[in-house]
Amino acid sequence: MDFKKMLANDRVKPYLLKARYGIEKESHRVDQSGNLAKTDHPKSITLKDDHPYIQRDFSETQMELITPVTETVEDLFNYLAAIHDVAYRSMDDEMLWPLSMPPQLPEDEEDIVIAKLENVENVRYRQFLSQSYGRRKQMVSGIHFNFEFGKELVQALFRSQSEIEDYQQFKAEMYLKVTRNYLHYRWFMTYFYGASPQSEKNFFEDDSLNETVRSIRASKYGYANSDDVQVSYSSIRNYILDLASMVQRGLLSEEKEFYAPVRLRGGRHVSDLEDHGVQYIELRNIDLNPFERHGISEEQVEFLHLFLLYLLWKDEGDHCDEWVKMGDSYNEIVALEHPLARTQFEVEADKMIDEMEQLVEILDLPVSDMLFVHLREMLMDPSKTLAGKLYKENEKSSQSLVATLIAKENYKKSWEKPYQLAGFTDMELSTQILMFDAIQQGVQIEILDRQAQFLKLKLNDHIEYVKNGNMTSKDNYVSTLIMENKTVTKKILHQHGFRVPKGEEFQTIDQALQSYHLFSTKPFVVKPKTTNYGLGISIFKDGAKEEDYLKALTLAFKEDHSVIVEEFMKGTEYRFFVLNDQVHAVLLRIPANVKGDGKHTIEELVIEKNRDPLRGRDHRTPLETIQLGELENLMLKGQGYQMDSILEKDVIVYLRENSNISTGGDSIDVTDLIPDDYKKIAVDAVSALGVKICGIDLIIEDTEVPATDKNAYGIIEANFNPSMYMHVYPYKGKSRRLTMHIIQYLFPELLQSQDSKFIKLGVPLAKREFTMVPC
Amino acid sequence: MDFKKMLANDRVKPYLLKARYGIEKESHRVDQSGNLAKTDHPKSITLKDDHPYIQRDFSETQMELITPVTETVEDLFNYLAAIHDVAYRSMDDEMLWPLSMPPQLPEDEEDIVIAKLENVENVRYRQFLSQSYGRRKQMVSGIHFNFEFGKELVQALFRSQSEIEDYQQFKAEMYLKVTRNYLHYRWFMTYFYGASPQSEKNFFEDDSLNETVRSIRASKYGYANSDDVQVSYSSIRNYILDLASMVQRGLLSEEKEFYAPVRLRGGRHVSDLEDHGVQYIELRNIDLNPFERHGISEEQVEFLHLFLLYLLWKDEGDHCDEWVKMGDSYNEIVALEHPLARTQFEVEADKMIDEMEQLVEILDLPVSDMLFVHLREMLMDPSKTLAGKLYKENEKSSQSLVATLIAKENYKKSWEKPYQLAGFTDMELSTQILMFDAIQQGVQIEILDRQAQFLKLKLNDHIEYVKNGNMTSKDNYVSTLIMENKTVTKKILHQHGFRVPKGEEFQTIDQALQSYHLFSTKPFVVKPKTTNYGLGISIFKDGAKEEDYLKALTLAFKEDHSVIVEEFMKGTEYRFFVLNDQVHAVLLRIPANVKGDGKHTIEELVIEKNRDPLRGRDHRTPLETIQLGELENLMLKGQGYQMDSILEKDVIVYLRENSNISTGGDSIDVTDLIPDDYKKIAVDAVSALGVKICGIDLIIEDTEVPATDKNAYGIIEANFNPSMYMHVYPYKGKSRRLTMHIIQYLFPELLQSQDSKFIKLGVPLAKREFTMVPC
Repeated sequence: MDFKKMLANDRVKPYLLKARYGIEKESHRVDQSGNLAKTDHPKSITLKDDHPYIQRDFSETQMELITPVTETVEDLFNYLAAIHDVAYRSMDDEMLWPLSMPPQLPEDEEDIVIAKLENVENVRYRQFLSQSYGRRKQMVSGIHFNFEFGKELVQALFRSQSEIEDYQQFKAEMYLKVTRNYLHYRWFMTYFYGASPQSEKNFFEDDSLNETVRSIRASKYGYANSDDVQVSYSSIRNYILDLASMVQRGLLSEEKEFYAPVRLRGGRHVSDLEDHGVQYIELRNIDLNPFERHGISEEQVEFLHLFLLYLLWKDEGDHCDEWVKMGDSYNEIVALEHPLARTQFEVEADKMIDEMEQLVEILDLPVSDMLFVHLREMLMDPSKTLAGKLYKENEKSSQSLVATLIAKENYKKSWEKPYQLAGFTDMELSTQILMFDAIQQGVQIEILDRQAQFLKLKLNDHIEYVKNGNMTSKDNYVSTLIMENKTVTKKILHQHGFRVPKGEEFQTIDQALQSYHLFSTKPFVVKPKTTNYGLGISIFKDGAKEEDYLKALTLAFKEDHSVIVEEFMKGTEYRFFVLNDQVHAVLLRIPANVKGDGKHTIEELVIEKNRDPLRGRDHRTPLETIQLGELENLMLKGQGYQMDSILEKDVIVYLRENSNISTGGDSIDVTDLIPDDYKKIAVDAVSALGVKICGIDLIIEDTEVPATDKNAYGIIEANFNPSMYMHVYPYKGKSRRLTMHIIQYLFPELLQSQDSKFIKLGVPLAKREFTMVPC
Repeated sequence: MDFKKMLANDRVKPYLLKARYGIEKESHRVDQSGNLAKTDHPKSITLKDDHPYIQRDFSETQMELITPVTETVEDLFNYLAAIHDVAYRSMDDEMLWPLSMPPQLPEDEEDIVIAKLENVENVRYRQFLSQSYGRRKQMVSGIHFNFEFGKELVQALFRSQSEIEDYQQFKAEMYLKVTRNYLHYRWFMTYFYGASPQSEKNFFEDDSLNETVRSIRASKYGYANSDDVQVSYSSIRNYILDLASMVQRGLLSEEKEFYAPVRLRGGRHVSDLEDHGVQYIELRNIDLNPFERHGISEEQVEFLHLFLLYLLWKDEGDHCDEWVKMGDSYNEIVALEHPLARTQFEVEADKMIDEMEQLVEILDLPVSDMLFVHLREMLMDPSKTLAGKLYKENEKSSQSLVATLIAKENYKKSWEKPYQLAGFTDMELSTQILMFDAIQQGVQIEILDRQAQFLKLKLNDHIEYVKNGNMTSKDNYVSTLIMENKTVTKKILHQHGFRVPKGEEFQTIDQALQSYHLFSTKPFVVKPKTTNYGLGISIFKDGAKEEDYLKALTLAFKEDHSVIVEEFMKGTEYRFFVLNDQVHAVLLRIPANVKGDGKHTIEELVIEKNRDPLRGRDHRTPLETIQLGELENLMLKGQGYQMDSILEKDVIVYLRENSNISTGGDSIDVTDLIPDDYKKIAVDAVSALGVKICGIDLIIEDTEVPATDKNAYGIIEANFNPSMYMHVYPYKGKSRRLTMHIIQYLFPELLQSQDSKFIKLGVPLAKREFTMVPC
């Protein structure tokens, strides 16, 4: 088949870069000094052998991070970053070793701890590997890159030819060609991206083997099957037969022991390839890139994608098995070259770069020019290859020190904004935290609509959809509509015997004026039926004159066509977060404020307070920075201050009337301080509304007074989709990991399968001291 | 206690007119000739003795309509009108007799059929009454008016005095005073509103008794207890003791046989009054007002309210039981006066009108001046009283003929717009129909928010909330959010193996332009992610040039910041209404159109088509009137027509591109024509979304082709809160009573307790002929 012609076909072209990607990345847990961790795999990560994101490979220290299959490189790296964040923040002060070659190993290889997996078979297999290959070799880590040509591309290619009538067969031929060429030309990749030039102590039993090369891992010193293991790539049938024969002859214990640099994938077993066809290929010979936080760069993936297209395009040799074998020896040569030596295949490599560039031009592919600039640079100057770069760094001190420093840098980065989930920082904070928890718990996430914060969560066959962090299938539709409607909420709560502000709804100013006498002498509030950011609300704490009432009505009717006039309740407003008939958090919100020290101006105090890493903008941090705008100035003026007033020691000045977190307010967790009887009121009220996930606001004048007392409390409103992050990362007080509760509520089976006490927060909030602030 | 002073207290005044009302109204079912119906109580009304809205009183023909308790007179009449609508449209061509005196009775009173109630005790009691009083007297009908002073008013009055310390006792004294005065002065009401001057044949066994008076019903000839039955109103205790003694002495079979013109109410039994206090009073001596469709006028209720306040205000006589007894004889005198005679109590009556007017002035009550104008007119001219008016009408022909004509008029009115529910015509049509069905089924309705179409439905202890007709507790929250999001809906349906238009979502024009080649040669559509009324949608049936694609994108991005470009599917769009895994209706919507007759212009044809009573404006009728605006003109022009073109016979001209019912489109029920395999697709797709109530739109090219065929169908969108009225009242085809299905889905217990085949539609759509219209 003439793939050169087929790829250039106009009906094929639109789909050339359609593909699906997946990465598996191994690396070892080490302590802050760069020593192999002596601890078990973190218990905060759900322990299961088939965890979709974070597993153990050979040893207990060898973490394997697995991205889901993605359709864009961007998504691939988003997930890779996110899973790294979860891995880092699930460990106790441990780091990930950034090199393919492991850190110093124990003298006695028996001291290398095999992964403590659940399934006995899995442990037994690792014991078998120890015996066959020794434990040291199994400690080498790397990246597996899973790649599938887009379905539309394969279909378009299939339709552009008439040689092969069967679609599956056609697809198999496509992947076989790529595989053979990959095996033949993989030295090309080893040159640029090989990155295991040196080993640490105790890797080689015989230290004399310890030469400096481009890639120990890609050479015969990495782990590879014995030379007797030979498999034909001439056809799927032969591939399957050969593998079966290797297993039968005892050269392989089972199929998965076949350590080829590339595997054909499809179905669970190799034999399934014949029925299911080839679905994708797995490239296994990629060293960890020490200079990338996540072990591989986007440019590398761009290269791999282009390289595979190129290998499909490029003619291959006649005798295919020989062609593959030639590749093995070429690769061995390049892998064992000195990292600073120019390669023996320089001319050939140069030609291949040219060809790839031509291909980009012919097929009009949107590939970055920089890729070729970098490849040529590396070809001309070996010290710019990964192996070369690392070796030069190592020369300054030692590889072990270099790796430890890199690991420390990566560790620091992942704790810098511990409330964020890398790769998804554009999403709402509550959704980011929920995704963090899902990854940690081994619940699969799929983003159905990123802008809409719409997630699909999956655990085995159990699917749950979640929007904005806590809009779920657990709540019924009409209950959320009840909460959306203040009048209806109040009516229903009142009918169930709860105290709500007495009031009336009006559609016109005249109507409202007629009822003036019902409110005139009492504390009352005038507000639009629906309002944002408190616009149009007037509070009269001791009744009002009719003219002031009229003014308030006019203001309110500007915001909505329905206006509510109701009793004003005195006391402090608390937000109760109720989930499935339980109060999981109670929060006090306090208007933006600063506390004086007798030395600094208010402005300086604000600037200082805003330095808190929890403060930022646009709801992408747990707290918002305090503004110093018109409203804040007015508010200060009303209290006899200016921006440059020096605030007396311990005096608190408020910069806002409203206590919204979005305008710089402080969130203070008071869950443990609120008596149970008030919590019961919250739970019962939420239950009366038929709601499962709710943020309900209670005004309480004095929490010491029993909730059963007349007028002890009033319910202001019930909120569907209540904010969660402000409870998870409060300004003061204990963190309440509500997102985790949501996940466990959606997937109760999680709690059955693990000891829930190991669920811990990804952020050390304990440092923050709690003090109750008067309001 | 000085109620005069107390009522004028400033703290009392705001609440003076706060009250709660309820009406029970009896009237007989008659045939179109005005003869007592020989049929059973309509089976379409749920048969239960304690139906909250429509019961039977003494006889099987005697319908009792019961309003819920309301807090405004307006609401009271809304419910009264609605319940009348349901009663009328639940009967087979029967009418309601508008007079208190029954139509001609059977010669043998044994032929009067006692109500066939479920509970044997209830039947037995009626048999006992037949024996004690004769069946004829039990056939007299009237109105019971339940009245409660507003809680705030009673509390304010209580606080304004210090004589009585116990609140319940105070309230009892209040109601006792009103009751005694009511019994003393009720002649006043009998004069104005007595309306049973004459009886029909066979009412009196002895025809010599048949005199013409103001109110037979209010006189000794109405049903009343024997003279031995005497009860003291001096205190609650005495009242209870006397009643108990009457029962003990066998003068009454049980408490409810006590036929006083007013009853003190509170708790289930009279004895409960002592523990629970008096809750309200029931006025029982109100004749049906023949000149009001619903038996009583709003002015009468305004009068009653004011009269009761007046009786609270007005001093009473010293010896209270004597005072009450005097009232009995005064009333007897007035009731037996000739309807055209001036009353013996004219001077006293005139003084009372003056006093009531003074009261209004002193207390600054917003009572209409017209009430007093009318009272004075009636006092001066007895022919203007209800009895006088009826008598004068009767003189022209006969009372029987007059009543039959009135009944016919009322009957006609209630069938005029059979899709509406009187009293609630401002609400959405689907909600009106749902309320109709709820009333018929004996499910209690409470309107929580009228503008928001928010209902509370209650059957025994089972409560369900419903918004906009079908937003209920049965659907889960996230499923409705899925449906709200086209991209997410498509993804999930696709993941479940359903065919949806392939497409992509874009946030910028540039992004979308890059994907031009993916669509360029195929039928495709460009549309804003969310859109109303089809704005911003462009359809390219055979691909598009890049410049046209750009234009379409520009249009779409004007409507939303997200734009979808997707495959355009050819075929006809059908709306499947799925409820609880069952397709209950399939509808074809056709753009506004007219069909030529070779004689009339398009404009004339439109005017003619708009005469259909199902057409109107603003979604308050099942179909909208076809407009003749700019868009319609353009559309005609495109087809070579003008408004004044005479359309050839049988030619159909479309006036719109879109098939929305809201722009004059036709709705055609095709439920029985759609093959089951497509219905299964609809059900399965809705189930995949986790939805219970859904309108799902399928494009089908040819319903003859099996749904399993490739590309046989495509799912366009799934709608939560799908319109129901268009299925209940289609332009053509069978009516599908979806609202009833919703009620039965919410209250499955309804189906257990009755034979559901009796559920029938309130509108005879059978007249409409069904023809399939090609699209």
